[in-house]
Amino acid sequence: MTEQAVSMKIAIINGPNLNLIGTRETEIYGDQSLDQYLAKLGEDFPDAELIIQQSNIEGILIDWIQEAGKNCQGIIINPGGYTHTSVAIGDALASIQIPVIEVHISNIFARESFRQHSYVSSCCKGVISGLGLDGYRLALMHLLNA
Amino acid sequence: MTEQAVSMKIAIINGPNLNLIGTRETEIYGDQSLDQYLAKLGEDFPDAELIIQQSNIEGILIDWIQEAGKNCQGIIINPGGYTHTSVAIGDALASIQIPVIEVHISNIFARESFRQHSYVSSCCKGVISGLGLDGYRLALMHLLNA
Amino acid sequence: MTEQAVSMKIAIINGPNLNLIGTRETEIYGDQSLDQYLAKLGEDFPDAELIIQQSNIEGILIDWIQEAGKNCQGIIINPGGYTHTSVAIGDALASIQIPVIEVHISNIFARESFRQHSYVSSCCKGVISGLGLDGYRLALMHLLNA
Amino acid sequence: MTEQAVSMKIAIINGPNLNLIGTRETEIYGDQSLDQYLAKLGEDFPDAELIIQQSNIEGILIDWIQEAGKNCQGIIINPGGYTHTSVAIGDALASIQIPVIEVHISNIFARESFRQHSYVSSCCKGVISGLGLDGYRLALMHLLNA
Amino acid sequence: MTEQAVSMKIAIINGPNLNLIGTRETEIYGDQSLDQYLAKLGEDFPDAELIIQQSNIEGILIDWIQEAGKNCQGIIINPGGYTHTSVAIGDALASIQIPVIEVHISNIFARESFRQHSYVSSCCKGVISGLGLDGYRLALMHLLNA
Amino acid sequence: MTEQAVSMKIAIINGPNLNLIGTRETEIYGDQSLDQYLAKLGEDFPDAELIIQQSNIEGILIDWIQEAGKNCQGIIINPGGYTHTSVAIGDALASIQIPVIEVHISNIFARESFRQHSYVSSCCKGVISGLGLDGYRLALMHLLNA
Amino acid sequence: MTEQAVSMKIAIINGPNLNLIGTRETEIYGDQSLDQYLAKLGEDFPDAELIIQQSNIEGILIDWIQEAGKNCQGIIINPGGYTHTSVAIGDALASIQIPVIEVHISNIFARESFRQHSYVSSCCKGVISGLGLDGYRLALMHLLNA
Amino acid sequence: MTEQAVSMKIAIINGPNLNLIGTRETEIYGDQSLDQYLAKLGEDFPDAELIIQQSNIEGILIDWIQEAGKNCQGIIINPGGYTHTSVAIGDALASIQIPVIEVHISNIFARESFRQHSYVSSCCKGVISGLGLDGYRLALMHLLNA
Amino acid sequence: MTEQAVSMKIAIINGPNLNLIGTRETEIYGDQSLDQYLAKLGEDFPDAELIIQQSNIEGILIDWIQEAGKNCQGIIINPGGYTHTSVAIGDALASIQIPVIEVHISNIFARESFRQHSYVSSCCKGVISGLGLDGYRLALMHLLNA
Amino acid sequence: MTEQAVSMKIAIINGPNLNLIGTRETEIYGDQSLDQYLAKLGEDFPDAELIIQQSNIEGILIDWIQEAGKNCQGIIINPGGYTHTSVAIGDALASIQIPVIEVHISNIFARESFRQHSYVSSCCKGVISGLGLDGYRLALMHLLNA
Amino acid sequence: MTEQAVSMKIAIINGPNLNLIGTRETEIYGDQSLDQYLAKLGEDFPDAELIIQQSNIEGILIDWIQEAGKNCQGIIINPGGYTHTSVAIGDALASIQIPVIEVHISNIFARESFRQHSYVSSCCKGVISGLGLDGYRLALMHLLNA
Amino acid sequence: MTEQAVSMKIAIINGPNLNLIGTRETEIYGDQSLDQYLAKLGEDFPDAELIIQQSNIEGILIDWIQEAGKNCQGIIINPGGYTHTSVAIGDALASIQIPVIEVHISNIFARESFRQHSYVSSCCKGVISGLGLDGYRLALMHLLNA
Repeated sequence: MTEQAVSMKIAIINGPNLNLIGTRETEIYGDQSLDQYLAKLGEDFPDAELIIQQSNIEGILIDWIQEAGKNCQGIIINPGGYTHTSVAIGDALASIQIPVIEVHISNIFARESFRQHSYVSSCCKGVISGLGLDGYRLALMHLLNA
Repeated sequence: MTEQAVSMKIAIINGPNLNLIGTRETEIYGDQSLDQYLAKLGEDFPDAELIIQQSNIEGILIDWIQEAGKNCQGIIINPGGYTHTSVAIGDALASIQIPVIEVHISNIFARESFRQHSYVSSCCKGVISGLGLDGYRLALMHLLNA
Repeated sequence: MTEQAVSMKIAIINGPNLNLIGTRETEIYGDQSLDQYLAKLGEDFPDAELIIQQSNIEGILIDWIQEAGKNCQGIIINPGGYTHTSVAIGDALASIQIPVIEVHISNIFARESFRQHSYVSSCCKGVISGLGLDGYRLALMHLLNA
Repeated sequence: MTEQAVSMKIAIINGPNLNLIGTRETEIYGDQSLDQYLAKLGEDFPDAELIIQQSNIEGILIDWIQEAGKNCQGIIINPGGYTHTSVAIGDALASIQIPVIEVHISNIFARESFRQHSYVSSCCKGVISGLGLDGYRLALMHLLNA
Repeated sequence: MTEQAVSMKIAIINGPNLNLIGTRETEIYGDQSLDQYLAKLGEDFPDAELIIQQSNIEGILIDWIQEAGKNCQGIIINPGGYTHTSVAIGDALASIQIPVIEVHISNIFARESFRQHSYVSSCCKGVISGLGLDGYRLALMHLLNA
Repeated sequence: MTEQAVSMKIAIINGPNLNLIGTRETEIYGDQSLDQYLAKLGEDFPDAELIIQQSNIEGILIDWIQEAGKNCQGIIINPGGYTHTSVAIGDALASIQIPVIEVHISNIFARESFRQHSYVSSCCKGVISGLGLDGYRLALMHLLNA
Repeated sequence: MTEQAVSMKIAIINGPNLNLIGTRETEIYGDQSLDQYLAKLGEDFPDAELIIQQSNIEGILIDWIQEAGKNCQGIIINPGGYTHTSVAIGDALASIQIPVIEVHISNIFARESFRQHSYVSSCCKGVISGLGLDGYRLALMHLLNA
Repeated sequence: MTEQAVSMKIAIINGPNLNLIGTRETEIYGDQSLDQYLAKLGEDFPDAELIIQQSNIEGILIDWIQEAGKNCQGIIINPGGYTHTSVAIGDALASIQIPVIEVHISNIFARESFRQHSYVSSCCKGVISGLGLDGYRLALMHLLNA
Repeated sequence: MTEQAVSMKIAIINGPNLNLIGTRETEIYGDQSLDQYLAKLGEDFPDAELIIQQSNIEGILIDWIQEAGKNCQGIIINPGGYTHTSVAIGDALASIQIPVIEVHISNIFARESFRQHSYVSSCCKGVISGLGLDGYRLALMHLLNA
Repeated sequence: MTEQAVSMKIAIINGPNLNLIGTRETEIYGDQSLDQYLAKLGEDFPDAELIIQQSNIEGILIDWIQEAGKNCQGIIINPGGYTHTSVAIGDALASIQIPVIEVHISNIFARESFRQHSYVSSCCKGVISGLGLDGYRLALMHLLNA
Repeated sequence: MTEQAVSMKIAIINGPNLNLIGTRETEIYGDQSLDQYLAKLGEDFPDAELIIQQSNIEGILIDWIQEAGKNCQGIIINPGGYTHTSVAIGDALASIQIPVIEVHISNIFARESFRQHSYVSSCCKGVISGLGLDGYRLALMHLLNA
Repeated sequence: MTEQAVSMKIAIINGPNLNLIGTRETEIYGDQSLDQYLAKLGEDFPDAELIIQQSNIEGILIDWIQEAGKNCQGIIINPGGYTHTSVAIGDALASIQIPVIEVHISNIFARESFRQHSYVSSCCKGVISGLGLDGYRLALMHLLNA
């Protein structure tokens, strides 16, 4: 008899333009596809069930956050450009109980000043910024306590 | 022959995360479901035909505002987190002729400073904030002149 | 045997220049006399005992707030121009236990930017702005739970 | 038969601490008593009936502005320290129809930065600042078209 | 043998409330329908294949920008109210290689101060503002080098 | 023959809402009555003649400052909420020659940011904040050089 | 024997666009020509020798200020749009010893916010604003002590 | 019989340092001479009579604006560095009736933040920025309705 | 048997440049040596054991605060110039349990604006500013409840 | 023959007050000792040679950064309160070539606003904030690519 | 045979009011004439050919900068009051290739806050401020590498 | 008998990270070692006795400033990153009487905005910025009047 039943369900929610990672502004974001990276991550951590989602629409991200709040044990979110403008995503995160980690591929603190304020961070447990796609892995390890 | 035809059509448009009212942050918003409250409100005011809508997507709120501008005699709007970030919702409200009342369940003026600026208020007839779900009833009474 | 004893005592406290309502800047405030409106309001709600007061002097408004805090079950306050400059009125409101509703006849959020900050709002239960003299009625109904 | 009836009634309203002019901070305000100066001014312009008033209380200044709005043909106001903090005095001036001239004895623009904003000026016809007590005379001549 | 194959494909992407142009706030935007104007524009420039799109949803605009980045030779974008609040649209524009021209029908620099900052402009080649619907034609001529 | 004639006359001037100390917001201000404390203080320092005054009206505080400037050897002032908004009280203090000490019962620097600016402090010799009612005693000892 | 020698020499220096007064934006500035007004003013005050100058060039205004500092007994200056942007004109005024009065025809305090800061005022004796062309006459009377 | 008489007179007014275009900072402004470009533009639009002027002196630009206001049917202005600092040029433009289009060769919104505010734009009909020298052609076409 | 054991241990921690008091800028700080004053203070209050320390090095002040937190019953701190720039000193004070009083010899509120913000005050029980060296004595009396 | 030579040398540099972790403000930082945690971390990663240092003195942190820049392959830095005030630490980090990761135990973005700006972040490769002591482990894993 | 041909041509360009140095505000600028000082400087450095120019007109300074950019090997510029307001002078300096040193006679950093920002400095190689007329000599020595 | 006794003693005090000059960020600071440069400078000016000091610790710089104030005739200081954050260094400089010149190797006005404010400059006689290591030589020549 196996203990597969104990696997954690983790939502990975990516915001606008993150579908382009690997092809867009590669000097900033690198040339690895985010899709492939996250698929591989799922294989590396078989104990975790990853729900991988991407949308350019702010409200759909909020829908997914609400759903994850009911069905998952943790969220890894990269809100992309909405990081800096969305009170509503922050409100959604504040309204759920599971731990949330905000991830940014690039170091947002070394970029334009408007990228240095986040409406989201104060509603998360913590933030990982600037460590490339590896940020997703580290966030996952923290949630899994791996 | 009845005068039912004179009933006013009022759109009640709720923004992001308001579907969670009653379950989320109950120390701020109370534990009554907004859905049930508004359903009951419709029964209490049979002369008003209430069009009750909620979306987490900013642009869909704008669609509904435009539609209400054509089909209704008044709008009660609670833009949630978009209150503080959406020029576009303000523009939509400015582009219609019917009276609009902005409602907030909590007293936004007693919360974080970023909640104390609204792009929406200047495009409304008036604002009711902090009176709980009762704010919807008072707004409706004002529109109905009840 | 009557239940007159259960009537609520509500203080309505109006600040500077509100004695001129009905004659001053009627394009903003309308041409109805505030005195007459409130007198009529008292008749419409016989269960409420209204204490109606107006002064141009900030400190006298504070005196009345302190008194109402001892003798009344609720306050409806329109601090007029002191809304935007008086820390002391806010302090007075913060020092009492009964519910307070701030009312503005015009929509202060659609006027000069200095009218969009209030030192008073965070010390009230809620705010009604822009609904004309009807704001007093709605506030009263909320307090009376009518 | 005389034409005394044509004399203009002008209110001269002085705010806080102006009763001390002539004794206080004489390096800024000079050592001439404002009382004596204004009494002499009344003698020099017999066609004008001057109503000279001073109070340290903001609300009483508002009372006088409202009264002058009904009974006088012009106001000369020096709001003293309330210049920089009183929305309510500005509101009172905005609510009357007669011409108002704001006078400051010292050049407020050469003093602390907080003295360089006035809530009152935009509600007056014009401003005279820095010309000493002579500012009152010039303002009066303008009102009298003398 | 024809040279139809050389026609340029240009996306014209319009943001929130621009579907109302011609009916809404005509003193600002004029009374000509944007739909009809753009249809006519397509006829006037047969060498250009115009992809005309309008949405009130920010994320759908981003979808279209990403698609145009792959399939078109240029974009004319009027982001409406999102101009002033959307980092994500700016990011989408920064992630593509084709030239983009931002167009505003009204002169946004002569309106409210919050309309005078754009998150989008720095990600475009250039901006045309205030020349009415003619701004679309001029932008098209620039892209076509006509 | 006694030297009672050498007793110093000290004005203690308290601003708005300080009459409530001991009953209001006791978690901030403590539950001791200010009246009783100051009466006791007068007994403890028989060499000082204390003139104890409280008003909610800004202008009356100014009247008392002017009078103390003529009749007393020092002032202890707690301007309450007027601390942060009154240029006129600052002007009154600047116009007199006797030493003035500003006292705040709570530590205003650990409260809302608007309480961290004082128009009054720069016109005083010094400030004591946060030491409870004991601040009055320390100020008095400093003035008496006791 | 004549007393012509006792006449005061006063420079009246007008800045950019003031040559258009009487024809430009007459709802703000009135329809009287400034040239004619000042010529008439010279006739009304035969004891004063008026040097009347207008230029659109900032540096030429500075040249004239320097010259007037050597040859005149007073300056009346209306720096027009340079009021709000010219440190150099302020420096020129600070470098001379004769009294200078700044005049504005319209009430600059009731206009756009950028017109409410002056680099010039702190370098003048005083300011007259909003009293129309009569401001020049009052300034002259003050300088002549007439 | 010819209709040459109907040609429009358009002033093209260029501000400081624009005489260097083609030689200065060519990575920003390109290497084409503005003089030659505008001369060619005049040939391409024989129906327009172009008055081409350049000066480094703010006041001379104002002189030319005033003259064009009397003699021309439109202005194309590139105020160069004065765009961001000149209230006086804005005043001059506000004082004339003919349509004015502001042109910038580079995209000022993608440069230093101080280049993102213009005192001039709000006084123009519209703005074209970032489209290189072609901006002049587009502006001309708009004015000529060509 | 003696009661020496009941003496309180109080750390007096002085920051940068306070070793110069008595010789430096005596018009601001007076000409009394701080060393001698504090030595005398120790003699005047034999019940208190004073630990008197001064350093120009921010981190050493933090070391001493941490030590006092373990070994003393109270701290009197004058952080000198670090008052306005040191988050780390504030953090150290926040991390200990004993009462701390911040003392400034001069009235920092009457000096440059950058001296009017303190990162330290919100982490102290209270502040005494402007009462000269006497501030140390008053602080000590408060801690000793003497 | 062993491969010990391939172990990476990593400096872990902790700033002011971090020596108190485990005892100070445990509701924010937890009750685990940082010393013990880091010692254990060294055991868990035998391939890494950890140089663990803590100082309250800004300049000594700079000394260590410079040394690590010469002798180590990576730095994990938690600058404590200096994060928000030290340009000099940022300069030191900018002057070395090895990768640096900034770690904060608490989520600084959910605390006071002055903690939300870092002079250090833009000089690091990335930031981990709010994941407790686990942040050190994740940073180490990233550097070791473990 | 002489090497006179190798002398460097250096433009010294002085802005508004610098013609008054030696007579104006001598407590700030000293009483030595700038003209005489610079003439003497030319004698002291016979290898340098100094082109000494002063104008109160911003645009003429720009003309001279453009000319010096073609004919000289270096510029020493003191833009006077235009330092703080002229984007156009900065643009002119940015458009030339020769080294430019900005000189201020007084220490502008110890004066009014508006003198502490320069639009010019970022377009120069360096700045010398506060060293009196000697600043010109030091700048010259740097350019000549003397 | 020699006049060596007349040599001036000048302290050269360098702040954090300046020990790295010549190796660090050479595109900004050049590749010459500051140590070697200053040693050579001492040889070139035998009349000056140079006290050359560098520390990364703010408080030690303050110690040295205090010592130099007693023992030297002038100070050349480059406070490095402390320039922008240290009130305490400014206070130390303000407390001594000898002339101080602030030197920066790079042009701080052409770098990040936070480098454009100095707490130190207003406490110095003057500033030399952007002239590379030569700034030290020029400062020395000014102090020596060489």
